[in-house]
Amino acid sequence: MKCYEMFELKFSGPAPEGSRAEADVAAVFRCGDDEKTVKGFYDGDGIYKVRFLPQQTGTYSWKVEGVVQAEGTAECTASDKSHGMVQAVGTHFEYEDGTKYLPFGTTIYALAHQTEDIITQTLESLEKAPFNKVRHCIFPKHYDYNHNDPEFYPFEKDAEGNWDVHHPCLAYWKHFEEIVTRMGEMGIETDLILFHAYDRWGFAFLNMEECRVYLDYVMRRLAAYPYIWWSMANEYDIMFNHTIEDWYEIERIITEEDPYHHLLSNHNCMKLYDFSRPAVTHCCVQTIAMYKADEWQKRFRKPVVFDECCYEGDLQHEWGNISGFEMVNRFWCACAKGAYVTHGETFIDDQDVLWWAKGGKLKGESPKRIAFLKDLMYGLPAYVTPWDEPVWEDFENATEKKTGSMEDNPFFKLMGSLDGENREIIQMKNAQYSGCCGEEVFLKYYARQCARVSSIHLPKDKKYRIEVIDVWDMTRETLIEEASGTTQLQLPGKEGIAVLAVRR
Amino acid sequence: MKCYEMFELKFSGPAPEGSRAEADVAAVFRCGDDEKTVKGFYDGDGIYKVRFLPQQTGTYSWKVEGVVQAEGTAECTASDKSHGMVQAVGTHFEYEDGTKYLPFGTTIYALAHQTEDIITQTLESLEKAPFNKVRHCIFPKHYDYNHNDPEFYPFEKDAEGNWDVHHPCLAYWKHFEEIVTRMGEMGIETDLILFHAYDRWGFAFLNMEECRVYLDYVMRRLAAYPYIWWSMANEYDIMFNHTIEDWYEIERIITEEDPYHHLLSNHNCMKLYDFSRPAVTHCCVQTIAMYKADEWQKRFRKPVVFDECCYEGDLQHEWGNISGFEMVNRFWCACAKGAYVTHGETFIDDQDVLWWAKGGKLKGESPKRIAFLKDLMYGLPAYVTPWDEPVWEDFENATEKKTGSMEDNPFFKLMGSLDGENREIIQMKNAQYSGCCGEEVFLKYYARQCARVSSIHLPKDKKYRIEVIDVWDMTRETLIEEASGTTQLQLPGKEGIAVLAVRR
Repeated sequence: MKCYEMFELKFSGPAPEGSRAEADVAAVFRCGDDEKTVKGFYDGDGIYKVRFLPQQTGTYSWKVEGVVQAEGTAECTASDKSHGMVQAVGTHFEYEDGTKYLPFGTTIYALAHQTEDIITQTLESLEKAPFNKVRHCIFPKHYDYNHNDPEFYPFEKDAEGNWDVHHPCLAYWKHFEEIVTRMGEMGIETDLILFHAYDRWGFAFLNMEECRVYLDYVMRRLAAYPYIWWSMANEYDIMFNHTIEDWYEIERIITEEDPYHHLLSNHNCMKLYDFSRPAVTHCCVQTIAMYKADEWQKRFRKPVVFDECCYEGDLQHEWGNISGFEMVNRFWCACAKGAYVTHGETFIDDQDVLWWAKGGKLKGESPKRIAFLKDLMYGLPAYVTPWDEPVWEDFENATEKKTGSMEDNPFFKLMGSLDGENREIIQMKNAQYSGCCGEEVFLKYYARQCARVSSIHLPKDKKYRIEVIDVWDMTRETLIEEASGTTQLQLPGKEGIAVLAVRR
Repeated sequence: MKCYEMFELKFSGPAPEGSRAEADVAAVFRCGDDEKTVKGFYDGDGIYKVRFLPQQTGTYSWKVEGVVQAEGTAECTASDKSHGMVQAVGTHFEYEDGTKYLPFGTTIYALAHQTEDIITQTLESLEKAPFNKVRHCIFPKHYDYNHNDPEFYPFEKDAEGNWDVHHPCLAYWKHFEEIVTRMGEMGIETDLILFHAYDRWGFAFLNMEECRVYLDYVMRRLAAYPYIWWSMANEYDIMFNHTIEDWYEIERIITEEDPYHHLLSNHNCMKLYDFSRPAVTHCCVQTIAMYKADEWQKRFRKPVVFDECCYEGDLQHEWGNISGFEMVNRFWCACAKGAYVTHGETFIDDQDVLWWAKGGKLKGESPKRIAFLKDLMYGLPAYVTPWDEPVWEDFENATEKKTGSMEDNPFFKLMGSLDGENREIIQMKNAQYSGCCGEEVFLKYYARQCARVSSIHLPKDKKYRIEVIDVWDMTRETLIEEASGTTQLQLPGKEGIAVLAVRR
């Protein structure tokens, strides 16, 4: 038994008589004051399994009850490869052992439902790519460019030809787990999409009791994997057979059945989920409003992940035809404020292998720039938080009547008084993408602004080295060796420029 | 006397004893049932002038009363050069004689306050430029890159050194009128900014009684010019000494004193003016939310002019450093929906001559592309109105359960149910820039979408020739000679592409 690694017990026993999903087997794991009860599952061929994720070192005792009964102890030692689950801490993420984790995700919805060839190619692509999180689905996906049937489905059908959630298709789950494991061992988190609307088989129309059985089974099999996040849905709000109360119930079931409290959120099409709900660990948003990152961080006090902000590609749809530059631009906009972005790629393909649905090979121009950004962000001494650069001082200096504070400055007062439409559209226009690591690092990203001159308002009592970064050409050049206070900058006058001030 | 051209009467008389602004002189002009009373003004050297803008042909009788008294008649014949004032009709503009007018404006705030050299250079630049409207100010402007004092100010100072609105500086007004006239004769409308906040002289701090005298004087001198629009302010909402009621009063004074009802609106910094007010003829908006054009057209049933959507340039400010491509992009976004845009240019200059403040020479890459767009728009057989392309049919066809109408389609129902933040950010993402001239022409602009495939939903019973337009390279190529109904399109897969379907 290794801390932060899945521990599995196997037992022989008689096949379940009733539900094959809700097997009567559970175990209690104890270590010091920590006690967890986990449910097991029937894995076919007379084998029951109980999976457990130890979160501390020491001696564990375990006791299995139900159709099989056993007990024992295990010495849990430190892992040399797992840092534990990723958890939300404030507005950022970190592994359980405190190691920094910055999500740079990508999207391969139907990853598990492709041929072995494509899956292998995908994993090879991921080896070379910067992505450390993959959003993908349990249920197969029916949508343009993705009409193939998978080899297996999560459930078997009953005599009437309906999906029987009490009869899991074990081959499917074993296959699925293998993919999750292979990625996990590459350092890639699975952001597991539990429900979605793009369906022709009927999985989107399970009733709530069927959903409960399905979720319970998912937890039995998958909750002990350290590298899994729960994404209740992809575009929950267009699953028109579910009410919002159904989603709260789904949230409740997951929270109750997951002994470890993996990261949990819900992904919208048009209506953001209520991220203030206590069980929701982070804001999972589909939007292109990158400028909202710090507003949402402040409102929900949770990490903000732009889990869909359109895909680099050339499809007919506005969500699937942004340029590589724009994909990179959106990453920088969010990351400069200490928020996170998920990539996706949708280039038309002769074989209909589009990364966003099936994986395969990456064709776009953004991944290597995302890698450049990732290296830069991981190289910073701390997590980035939004920086309200004290630009109001410039307004103050430009007016005769001094007000002495941002709150009293009439310009900022007016800005603060706006609501509704006026507020949204001015936010969009005035968006500043600036972050900091305390007073150690200040980062300003100019997005599509082509400033040839600019300024940065650094602390007056500290010294900084200032670099100018071209996010597309991936260059970093020293602009000023030593700067303090408000400092004028000469910039290239083009889109995609960032400035990084690091304390000397 | 020519219809739609300014008619001026001059009289000698004793200089006014009290206010030199509120001269006691007015005239009544009669032609058939039409009767208009206009105030005159004292123009120095013992000369009084009464200006009148005839709006029909025929015999006018006139009678002047006050310090000078006279009467006479004039035969008003058709003009061979003026089409009359521009007026708002529905959501578009046209000249009084029915001639099409599509505003393609630019911004030269302190045009009238520069040296004669620069003004001449500016007018030469305008000769070669596509712009047919210039936003500029009566009051001088104090702001970065524009700190020079003008030769004259609108008023003289009193003995205490305060501006005396009762004592206009005639040299100033004559100079100002000459500029307005020179541009008017080039076909360029003056979008006259009556107030603004960028001031170091005190013009922004006139009290309401002073404002009334000033506005009354402006109307006496300028209302008879056919090529003038009233822009109550530039950024009314940051003139912190004025309440919203002051603005309503300013609006009332203009409406009452302007006998011809020139176009009238008010320009915001952050808070849109209330365009539903009856006296307001069009929506003058500062924003980059080009996607709101059709929403505002529908809400206010008036033309929408994006009179500031950032400037092509390289300043430190986000409002003054967009790329030429982005400026062109914003023009296309609005124009494709039948809305209008005003250009501006802010490139750092060795001599501090920035077009947006002073004029001079145009340096940017957008004007010739704006000319290309202008030619295209003027070449269309009618005004463009927003086109709700029936894309919902695609959703309908993709779902098993047919709903039969957009209103019943659950996807569009959800979209319609959104409010607040969710509504704004989805609008921004889903924005479609599509317009039509009835069923004669359909125009789709893809903005920054890089679609390689797309479709256009044309009427099934009519035939169209489809062109693909590259808005940056300024090319137009026939894509399909004859198309009807929903038609698949092969596109270049890059930003800045439009498709134009013209009925054969």
